[in-house]
Amino acid sequence: MKARVHVTLKAGVLDPQGKAIAHALHALGFDGVRDARQGKVIELDLEDDDPEAARARIDDMCRQLLANTVIETYRIEL
Amino acid sequence: MKARVHVTLKAGVLDPQGKAIAHALHALGFDGVRDARQGKVIELDLEDDDPEAARARIDDMCRQLLANTVIETYRIEL
Repeated sequence: MKARVHVTLKAGVLDPQGKAIAHALHALGFDGVRDARQGKVIELDLEDDDPEAARARIDDMCRQLLANTVIETYRIEL
Repeated sequence: MKARVHVTLKAGVLDPQGKAIAHALHALGFDGVRDARQGKVIELDLEDDDPEAARARIDDMCRQLLANTVIETYRIEL
């Protein structure tokens, strides 16, 4: 089965990549951009067929590797 | 209004970052991972209130800056 993990910086954590994007958009004339933040999506192709087991396993993957839970939050989409 | 842009590599484009993630997950004992691919999400805070106008503007942003349309596809979520 396919799963998607969205990893984003927690609110309040400085996001220089997002700031650079907002700055570049302003430079291109897109003045209506108040703010931009960048996160990542990881698309997983799993052998699991049981959504509940898959969710628990992905949660482990996030805590061990995919997300830095000190500064990032993650959301699992099955 | 808030908008989200998902940028992912086109199918068939080599994704070394995704391969590294899959490899690291295997090394951690997550054997059920067939494949992993990494993309990015950009969260925008816009002054626009009209979803149609916002979508057109974000489409411009994607083509000019946010996505490399040679190797990436994007999806706009309002």
